[in-house]
Amino acid sequence: MPEISNKAVEMPASPIRKLVPYADKAKKEGRKVYHLNIGQPDIESPQIMLDAVKNFPLKVIEYSNSAGIESYRKKLLTYYKRYNISLDLEDIIVTTGGSEAILIAVMSCLNPGDEIIIPEPFYANYNGFSCYAGITVKPIKSSIESGFALPSIEEFEKAITPKTKAVMICNPSNPTGHLYSRKELEALKTFVLKHDLWWLSDEVYREFCYDDNEYVSVMHLTGIDQNVVLLDSISKRYSACGARIGALISKNKEVMASALKFAQARLSPPTFGQVGAEAAIDTPPEYFENVKKEYVARRNFVVEELNNMTGVFCPKPNGAFYCIARLPIDDADKFCQWLLEHYNHDNETVMLAPATGFYSTEGAGINEVRIAYVLKIDDLKKAMICLDEALKVYPGRVVNRETESVNG
Amino acid sequence: MPEISNKAVEMPASPIRKLVPYADKAKKEGRKVYHLNIGQPDIESPQIMLDAVKNFPLKVIEYSNSAGIESYRKKLLTYYKRYNISLDLEDIIVTTGGSEAILIAVMSCLNPGDEIIIPEPFYANYNGFSCYAGITVKPIKSSIESGFALPSIEEFEKAITPKTKAVMICNPSNPTGHLYSRKELEALKTFVLKHDLWWLSDEVYREFCYDDNEYVSVMHLTGIDQNVVLLDSISKRYSACGARIGALISKNKEVMASALKFAQARLSPPTFGQVGAEAAIDTPPEYFENVKKEYVARRNFVVEELNNMTGVFCPKPNGAFYCIARLPIDDADKFCQWLLEHYNHDNETVMLAPATGFYSTEGAGINEVRIAYVLKIDDLKKAMICLDEALKVYPGRVVNRETESVNG
Repeated sequence: MPEISNKAVEMPASPIRKLVPYADKAKKEGRKVYHLNIGQPDIESPQIMLDAVKNFPLKVIEYSNSAGIESYRKKLLTYYKRYNISLDLEDIIVTTGGSEAILIAVMSCLNPGDEIIIPEPFYANYNGFSCYAGITVKPIKSSIESGFALPSIEEFEKAITPKTKAVMICNPSNPTGHLYSRKELEALKTFVLKHDLWWLSDEVYREFCYDDNEYVSVMHLTGIDQNVVLLDSISKRYSACGARIGALISKNKEVMASALKFAQARLSPPTFGQVGAEAAIDTPPEYFENVKKEYVARRNFVVEELNNMTGVFCPKPNGAFYCIARLPIDDADKFCQWLLEHYNHDNETVMLAPATGFYSTEGAGINEVRIAYVLKIDDLKKAMICLDEALKVYPGRVVNRETESVNG
Repeated sequence: MPEISNKAVEMPASPIRKLVPYADKAKKEGRKVYHLNIGQPDIESPQIMLDAVKNFPLKVIEYSNSAGIESYRKKLLTYYKRYNISLDLEDIIVTTGGSEAILIAVMSCLNPGDEIIIPEPFYANYNGFSCYAGITVKPIKSSIESGFALPSIEEFEKAITPKTKAVMICNPSNPTGHLYSRKELEALKTFVLKHDLWWLSDEVYREFCYDDNEYVSVMHLTGIDQNVVLLDSISKRYSACGARIGALISKNKEVMASALKFAQARLSPPTFGQVGAEAAIDTPPEYFENVKKEYVARRNFVVEELNNMTGVFCPKPNGAFYCIARLPIDDADKFCQWLLEHYNHDNETVMLAPATGFYSTEGAGINEVRIAYVLKIDDLKKAMICLDEALKVYPGRVVNRETESVNG
């Protein structure tokens, strides 16, 4: 029997999805599971989008252009314009989800062995795509006490080696919910220019910025056009994760010429998803206002509840629909598995994502979990009671752990 | 400005799509272009498939399972059963088109620097995915005179090096239309087992086998389960290239465990496409009978017309919907571009794919083109007249070239 590849061995299993078999078992045993582990919103997709797919006019489900359907790409220009991001048609390639945008970006910009600096905790699948491309993630730890603000530029400087080729951020951030300020981004810009690095910016949560905080895109910064690759997706924007439509965006012509070749190799992004996505650009503003209102209420509720639990600390995020909470527990992986295997409260339990999967540094995030507040308030209420009660009886409870260093 | 990656430089542009700007220009100038250059069939997708998408029942376009929607995977078992391919649920991962199945297979099975033996001419995008994975294609030339039959095993033996890790075939073949016989496959099996290689088999054209020739899948062979990865797609089967639904199939548990990790990194295949594909499994047999009848008529017409042209030779293929023709020309790339830029017959021209893009050996296929017979007979008639007349006036015409060695 031939051997599988080294990458096949090294490829990380999804930390978000690896607990799924335990959740399935809990459900088969008759327990209700509140899913706070995955960024699959319960919000309805815009009707205008669903209708466009229902009214698909063609008799042949054809390939689209490798760069995406031209009318969709043109319409995307108006979408970005609303966010004061001025693009030309050739700056946009439509991808199969944000995932493919990330993959094509790392393939286009980095060589095997190159290093990419990413503040941690970060979206776990960045590890997967780094493995795909054979590049090394150099994590820089952001702290829960600061609300996961950008680490100091001194920390970035310390991480520089001759192999450093790029930095990457997610803004607003999955998994922390942190929204980077203009000041933070300007500081990072100076660093990126100083070392002439690529700057990959994943901004798929731009619709989810709260409390009148300003959304600053990497595309708003001046004098850094040629270093910047914007990674985007409609998955969260329109609650349409299954459409698998994203975008890779850059003003750098070499990047775009390269990205097109990678895009041609896979022929085209999904046709139905693009048809829906094009229509969705006309989603009325009320849709987003309502969604935002809903998420702010959920966030306020969840964060307050968490901080009211003994030994729990959770900074209040300004964006996305996640928060990271530090719990009085020995090991988040064990705790999350225990919740599914052994715990029930009124025949219910809760599924969380252990934060360890979002850290690249061994042992970091051991007592943290990521919570996606993607359920209705009534369900979140029950889920929070469930969690609070669970923490009281969890055998691996660690008293006063919350006063220890999070770096410990 | 930072430098793009080496792979970005090496990544081949699609030989099928690189002439598109010239075709666009011809159309803007008012000339009609017959597209025989791309495997986008004009056949209507099954109504049952279009209806399923129109009736999409959910209000949220959700992620599916990373391995695909379970009900679809289950139904795929019945699809394969019809072809006498017996699978378990865990042998199948649904992919984003056959393209992603190829990508995940090479990533899972080969290390950078490893070599994969592929009879040429082969589907051009195999080069792209090899570049993605940093592996080297070792081509073995099949000859137009033999109808692109499997080269002798002696040729395969000559290509073996310590880095050889896999062989790959497309059966029936894009671009040659060759359908491999059981004898050919058994010979290749002995070779694969002798050297303990992976065997990647792209069988996306299994619905297109003509003249009562037997379709033999790599999954029909005995004693080679652990070496085999089947790559599949619904694109051609249901004329649904834009649905972007494929499958990676293997009985090798390590391959499947690895493939699932790569699949998790990109979250899920497209939801709408899967919903359509699941319904399409109930497409009535008459649909395929009619499609096959149509393609056989087209093939018979095109191949006969081609062989009637002075200096043209085209073997009659048994499968898929392509043929490769040798033309009395200096250079197929120049000729195909000239057809679009400078030629018109009654204000019409024809777009072909230069075969050079399907060969990995430098200079091979220089006087060959791939023709996809994906248009109605009436259009094929006009396209063939167009081509015949074009060959008479093409400035780079080479008389008696057809009697020279094709290896020259």
